[in-house]
Amino acid sequence: MLDQEIRRTAKSALLPIALERASEEPLHRQLYEQLRETILTGRLQAGARLPATRTLARDHRISRNTVTAAFDQLLAEGYIEGRVGAGTFVSSELPEEALSVRGMGRNPASGEAPVVQSAPRQRGLSRRGAQLAGLRRRRNRQSLAFAPGVPDLNSFPFEIWTRLMARAWRRPPMDLMANTEPAGYMPLRRAIADYVRTARGVRCEIEQVIIVSGAQQAIGLAAHVLLDEGDRAIVEDPGYPGIRGALMAAGVQAVQAPVDSEGLSISIGEEKAPDARFVCVAPSHQYPLGVTMPLSRRLALLEWAQRVDGWIIEDDYDSEYRYSGKPIAALQGLDRDDRVVYVGSFSKTMFPSLRLGYLIVPPDLTDSFRFARAALDDHPSTVAQPALTAFIEDGYFAAHLRRMRKLYADRQALLVGEADAHFGGALTIAPAQAGMHLLARQTPALTVRMDDITATRRAEEAGISVSPLSSFFHEYPAQQGLMLGYAAVSEKEIPKSVQKLAQALGI
Amino acid sequence: MLDQEIRRTAKSALLPIALERASEEPLHRQLYEQLRETILTGRLQAGARLPATRTLARDHRISRNTVTAAFDQLLAEGYIEGRVGAGTFVSSELPEEALSVRGMGRNPASGEAPVVQSAPRQRGLSRRGAQLAGLRRRRNRQSLAFAPGVPDLNSFPFEIWTRLMARAWRRPPMDLMANTEPAGYMPLRRAIADYVRTARGVRCEIEQVIIVSGAQQAIGLAAHVLLDEGDRAIVEDPGYPGIRGALMAAGVQAVQAPVDSEGLSISIGEEKAPDARFVCVAPSHQYPLGVTMPLSRRLALLEWAQRVDGWIIEDDYDSEYRYSGKPIAALQGLDRDDRVVYVGSFSKTMFPSLRLGYLIVPPDLTDSFRFARAALDDHPSTVAQPALTAFIEDGYFAAHLRRMRKLYADRQALLVGEADAHFGGALTIAPAQAGMHLLARQTPALTVRMDDITATRRAEEAGISVSPLSSFFHEYPAQQGLMLGYAAVSEKEIPKSVQKLAQALGI
Repeated sequence: MLDQEIRRTAKSALLPIALERASEEPLHRQLYEQLRETILTGRLQAGARLPATRTLARDHRISRNTVTAAFDQLLAEGYIEGRVGAGTFVSSELPEEALSVRGMGRNPASGEAPVVQSAPRQRGLSRRGAQLAGLRRRRNRQSLAFAPGVPDLNSFPFEIWTRLMARAWRRPPMDLMANTEPAGYMPLRRAIADYVRTARGVRCEIEQVIIVSGAQQAIGLAAHVLLDEGDRAIVEDPGYPGIRGALMAAGVQAVQAPVDSEGLSISIGEEKAPDARFVCVAPSHQYPLGVTMPLSRRLALLEWAQRVDGWIIEDDYDSEYRYSGKPIAALQGLDRDDRVVYVGSFSKTMFPSLRLGYLIVPPDLTDSFRFARAALDDHPSTVAQPALTAFIEDGYFAAHLRRMRKLYADRQALLVGEADAHFGGALTIAPAQAGMHLLARQTPALTVRMDDITATRRAEEAGISVSPLSSFFHEYPAQQGLMLGYAAVSEKEIPKSVQKLAQALGI
Repeated sequence: MLDQEIRRTAKSALLPIALERASEEPLHRQLYEQLRETILTGRLQAGARLPATRTLARDHRISRNTVTAAFDQLLAEGYIEGRVGAGTFVSSELPEEALSVRGMGRNPASGEAPVVQSAPRQRGLSRRGAQLAGLRRRRNRQSLAFAPGVPDLNSFPFEIWTRLMARAWRRPPMDLMANTEPAGYMPLRRAIADYVRTARGVRCEIEQVIIVSGAQQAIGLAAHVLLDEGDRAIVEDPGYPGIRGALMAAGVQAVQAPVDSEGLSISIGEEKAPDARFVCVAPSHQYPLGVTMPLSRRLALLEWAQRVDGWIIEDDYDSEYRYSGKPIAALQGLDRDDRVVYVGSFSKTMFPSLRLGYLIVPPDLTDSFRFARAALDDHPSTVAQPALTAFIEDGYFAAHLRRMRKLYADRQALLVGEADAHFGGALTIAPAQAGMHLLARQTPALTVRMDDITATRRAEEAGISVSPLSSFFHEYPAQQGLMLGYAAVSEKEIPKSVQKLAQALGI
């Protein structure tokens, strides 16, 4: 398929371009994006020559102006370069920002850092395979200050956990060992239903709880059940990169909607994608900006969903760690039309490698999600489900959350103070009401000297792990800043690491 | 998309039909299959009226003969019925076989049994969602004789397992708790590499091992990495139903190739799908027929893969339990061109709810699989990986396999003897060289009285769980027989259960 396509194009190029005339997106934008993708996945390598604009226009039956517009943008962004009398070539040095923009991870354990190289096209990989494999994230060492999204594992009560695990497995009931219920272990579903009802204001019955391995599998499952290949979904820009892989694997096209001071703008999303019936949103604590969506915007989202017969995938990200402001219940609890699919995870509240999360699905979709989950990945492992059930039911979970909330709040305050003292006018940090990281926004003065990608690399060289805010933007103007995770950084380490960072950035 | 399509069709019908003129498959067959799917997923409900053949032909720009041919087949199979002067309607009672044919599971823990009802179309479900949810399997009680594919959990050494789990978690290293390596826990990858090299003749380095949750995720990952949406894959008919969901979720079309006395016929597969570059095959012990593929056919498969630049997904199903005949190494070990992606699982050798399996991928694709796995489902849980590592490295795994091989061989011999004594001329059982189930083939005399679906239901009513062989066939003439799992049935229970089954079937 691909090979045929390649052979069909001019000799001068190996360009698998598929333009959709029916799409809302202008052709020049489609061409720009597909060329960019081809370069980023390494299928067009540095130094490769692009076909003449005339050839491209002819081969794809588009106007030459369309091709020129796409080329101009690629030129402006540094992906390609023109050589007088020789044509247009893929730049020998790709723009760092472009590379880092791909697949930044909110992964709780990996921390986030820019990707530093693109993937070369592999023998035999499909186009999709190259794209998925191209979503690579570098995985940071855990221990490093200030890797974002890492919980404090030293504070996890392992003695209790180990005891509960041993208790569950000492005399394992046969039905547990061979439990193949696709929706998961019933007692855990009950414990989760109780928890989200009480703590998050979610309205649900036990049957609506579907256990999955995490937010990515949750979103992927929802996309498979509710969308067809080629459908479009509205996502936040900037947003959680894990969504990208889940939607890409489901063959769903992500349409970026901007995040303003009230969170995702559904009105702009709808304008850009009137056909979209699926939105992924984190109303409690937007990632990475930390915005909490106010009621008016929540109601607008629900109104949209009802009007277009659509679905809201609510990623209730970081809702457990709220330090100030009124606790805000889940959007799901406001929903009177069963339009919300709620996503939760234990990666940050327990530990990352536990790999247990859940969906709360509308009541009439319960069986569809169950059976689709069985078709995709059979059923979740029961190895840890009983211990997690006991951990919740016996009150250890609530106690652990309380302790961590206090600990993280203290660490945040310490970091804010230290940053105020050492970052001068270069980085401004405001306290965050929730979550496990702070945004240190770069002042123009700093940005003139180095963008956040460069700052991240300098920090890294000094042994400090941060994530560049700009790397989470896809389409809207990237904001400059550094994300500093503080949850796993001890009180002793915070001042030292702030100083190291200040030194590394020369501030 | 779907709604638009529906509105476009005649008022008399809600038929989302998409015919591919470029397809190898004749149009009438495509139409038949899509109508059948529409009925089975409940989108066309019992009693619903179909549009006139003339209308359908016009709306989809096909000849009326094509429509008539599709209708004739649906009529013959009982999906639709004609009422004089009134038109054609979905049958009020759908054929049992048709319903049972959908999504029969090889799931190690579920046992297999026919599905007894189709799923009604749900509010808002996508076409794909309805298809995936329609792949429902009924999940049997484990304890029942003769649920196929269930290992003997009573014989699993839990004391040892619990001790290893506790040891791993007593003082958990931080890098384990926060291990987010997409390919899995390195010591387990090493232990698996050692095991498959020694026991299965697989040629691999540690890096080639990718830990997944099971065969479905393994096949789904391979399909995502190596195929694009709309690509075709050759699969065995009859075959492991779990493959269907994995391929469907990946947007890949399964092309059925027949299984003869030497296993999957790649020559027929290639004839039917010259464009296919991906085949799923179980050469060690074909499911459900139990055929072991001889060397000549293995070489033909490898020759095909090399010639078409294709991939062989080797599901090394049930290879651990071989009782007689020469042990046969994995196909992967014969491969000199890195064309084989090897799939293994611990569901049957350990226990089903462990949910750990693995891929051995070609060396140059290691990173692509790692990163694609991260994009799809981040990384595997490390909760059980260290204990499994120790279980293998300390020799418990090999010892357990040896014990089970002896136990299962004894049980099989006992079942063969009892069946010979009680099933008379109605069912013929031949010993199987490998695996955990026997095929009891129905004699024509029995089949005249009842097909295997009916026999399965009668058995079930008597408290005996079997699976009908015919339900694993999709396109080729279904063979009649019952699959009897014996691994989990005690020596005391086998004779009693054989007698119960004989009584239930009146033989």
